[in-house]
Order: sequence, then structure tokens, then C-alpha cells
Amino acid sequence: MGARLEVCLTPALIPLYKVEDYIVVIIDVFRATTSISYGIENGAEAIIPVSQIEECSAYLEKGFDYLLAAERNGAVVEGFDFGNSPFSYTKEKVAGKTIVLTTTNGTHALHLSRNAKKIIAGAFINLTAVCNWLKQQNENTLLVCSGWKNNFNLEDTLFAGAVVDQLKGHGFVVDDPAIAANDLFQLAKGDLNQYLKKTSHSDRLKALGIEADIEFCLKVDLTTAIPVLDGDKLVRLR
Amino acid sequence: MGARLEVCLTPALIPLYKVEDYIVVIIDVFRATTSISYGIENGAEAIIPVSQIEECSAYLEKGFDYLLAAERNGAVVEGFDFGNSPFSYTKEKVAGKTIVLTTTNGTHALHLSRNAKKIIAGAFINLTAVCNWLKQQNENTLLVCSGWKNNFNLEDTLFAGAVVDQLKGHGFVVDDPAIAANDLFQLAKGDLNQYLKKTSHSDRLKALGIEADIEFCLKVDLTTAIPVLDGDKLVRLR
Repeated sequence: MGARLEVCLTPALIPLYKVEDYIVVIIDVFRATTSISYGIENGAEAIIPVSQIEECSAYLEKGFDYLLAAERNGAVVEGFDFGNSPFSYTKEKVAGKTIVLTTTNGTHALHLSRNAKKIIAGAFINLTAVCNWLKQQNENTLLVCSGWKNNFNLEDTLFAGAVVDQLKGHGFVVDDPAIAANDLFQLAKGDLNQYLKKTSHSDRLKALGIEADIEFCLKVDLTTAIPVLDGDKLVRLR
Repeated sequence: MGARLEVCLTPALIPLYKVEDYIVVIIDVFRATTSISYGIENGAEAIIPVSQIEECSAYLEKGFDYLLAAERNGAVVEGFDFGNSPFSYTKEKVAGKTIVLTTTNGTHALHLSRNAKKIIAGAFINLTAVCNWLKQQNENTLLVCSGWKNNFNLEDTLFAGAVVDQLKGHGFVVDDPAIAANDLFQLAKGDLNQYLKKTSHSDRLKALGIEADIEFCLKVDLTTAIPVLDGDKLVRLR
């Protein structure tokens, strides 16, 4: 019997899994795990995900020399260094820095997965790097979609399906959500952006004026760094 | 803005919805809602779903003249009238009777949906009847997949997708899970049974010796009766 490859479609379902038995991949394609992967690729020393803007501010008050990232309704919160756009996570801005990033869905998923064997972050921009590493581990793997307010979303599910696509044929035993995710990815992979245009929040994202972000978040294999959780920080996996 | 048509992929996600605002369709294709729909079609006066065999037995002790249905590991429990096979719910056996049916996943979904505007049961055998009725209501509709142990399963999702397929173009606003379910249904509809052969529990079902049941559960539009919840009983919608 091979290692298991399972997909947890929303953070609300994480309690159904014995996460201690799994390597967990946190997925929050729009935009947290994309920005995190890009920041780590570009030399950020660490990225600390928090769920509330207030938590983020607390780091400022504690006098840490951290960059703070928080958005409300698509705009950078006053007094913060930048928002959640991956375009903020360039070498010039983040190399050698620690960043505190506010992300509700992603932080929630991370928190509920905290007892996993290991937690890494995945997004389309580091897809193949993540998959190659998972193949080498050959352990039970749980792909955790951060979703939207604890419910299912298509973009995170499509990424999970892309991972299943690369890992199938490598001896993993898949579950029903993994089969579904992979089948949806097959339908969408020709043009991810076009496929996602029919989703419920495509209009919401458009209204936020982050279409360029979305396009970036759907680019495949721009980077090779894998963020891994170390305490409360995501650092580069070495 | 039209009425909403949303898919709740597992009972664990029901708390995310304000069910009071919805007509709920409970889906447990293998085999509870199929057997219930077939039994109601065949003249059963009422079907009472319970989650535990012990609860089912309690009806016997209370001296009700009810038929009791319970299985363990695919076999009828000793002292019970029959199990969960739809083939037990024929006119000869159920006409005019009240049946107490043990079904863990389906009862769980029903219980969590109990504050809905109205609760009906759907399965492939009454697909078009359910869809036609939903079109007439034109209300917010939540398709609740009973799933497997609180998690996602493919067969209930495919049925939800089949409903979305018939209702799209009728002014409903769909969510991401509805889009996903419908896309999966499009992939599977040519041969539902073949599609489901790749699922995780296809082997489990085979081991239970209920392949004929499965085939029956995937037949489309055999019946027109719609079971509706009235108190703790499912009765024929009139």
C-alpha cells in the first residue's frame, strides 16, 4: 500500500484528518501562498502569517524591525508597508527581511494543521518544486485548500488537482476529493484564468482591481523555493 | 438578482449556511435517499430516518407497527425487517407502511438542516421530478451532500451537479461548489457507474456485494415522488 495523497477541500474539514500522520501543503492561491512563495524565493528571511490586522500591528508595537503587510478591501492599510499583492514581494523589498502578513483564510488553515509532520506552502508559481519534493518524501500528504470563509473555492482546488496530476503514477493512493480536484484541473488547465472567470468571486476580485495579481498567481513554475513552517515563521526549505 | 443555487459538499459545512433561508435537498445517493424516494414512490406512508441501530430498535420496543431497516456490514441486522437496499422498498413490502431506516450520513445531514424552509430528499431516480419542483419554487436552494463520515464523496456531488445542470439557465445564481459539481457531472454523465469505479470506496461497495444496488441508485428518473420532511418523518410531497 502506497502513501496517501488526500485533498482537504476547506479548513473546516481539517479536524477530520489525523494531521500528525501527514505532510501538509497549505494552499491559498489568491494570494497568500503565492506572495509567500515569491517572497521566500526573493530572499525574505521569514514570513509570519497572522489572521488579524491587529495582530500584525502588535509586531510594530513590539519594536521588531519587520515589514508589515495588510490590506482591507484591496487597499494597503495605513501605516503598513504593503498589502498582499505578490508584486510587493520583490528582491528589492524583501531580501533579508522578515514580513508579517495578514491573511485570514491561509492563517486559519495553518493553525488547524499545526500538528502535521511538516507544513509547506504551495501555489502555482512553485508547483513543480513542491511536487518534486513531495515525490522524494513519499509520505502521506494532505493538500489543504484554504478556501473562502471556511468553504470550498475553485482556485485552491485546481491547484490541489495540479499537484495530484504530477504525483499520480508515483504510487500514491488518492481519495475522492483528490480525484475530483484532478478532474477539475484537467478541465481548467488549458486556460486557468478563463476557467476561473465563471466563479462566484471573479467579480469581487475584479472590483478590488487585482486582476494583474490574479494573472500572476496563475503563472506556473516561476520559482523553486518552498516555504516551510518553522515555529510560527515560514522560511525557505533547505 | 435571482435565487441562489448552492451546493454544500459535506454535512460538516452546513453550519456555514443560514439554512432558514433555503429549501434544502438532502442527497445520499448510496443508498438512503434512493431507497427513501423509491419507498415513497411505492406507497410507503412515511419513512423515519435514524442514525443508530439502537434508535431503530427503540421503535420496536415502543410497540409501533413499523418496518425496521438496518444493516451492518452489508447484512440485515438480526430481528430487522430489511436493510438499506432499494430492492427492499417495493410496493409489496412498503405500501401503506411506516419504515424506520438507519442511515448515518443521511440522518446527520437532515439533522443539521432541520431549520430549513423545507427539506426534500433527492436521488438520481427522482432527479427530474426534484428539478421541476425546484424550478417552480424559484427559492434559494441548498443541495446538501451527505458525503461519507462528514467528508466529500463523488456520488453525492455528481447528483448535485445533475441538479445544477437542469436548473442552470433558470435564473439561479450558483456558487463555486455548484460550478465544480456541475463540471464533474459533465465529465461523468456519459457513464456514471464507470466514472465512479475510480473512487476510493468502489472496492468497499463491491466487497459488500451491493453492486446491483449501486447500479439501481444510478438509474435516472425511474420515479416521480418527492419525499419531504414533515416533523421527523419523510412523506410524499403533494
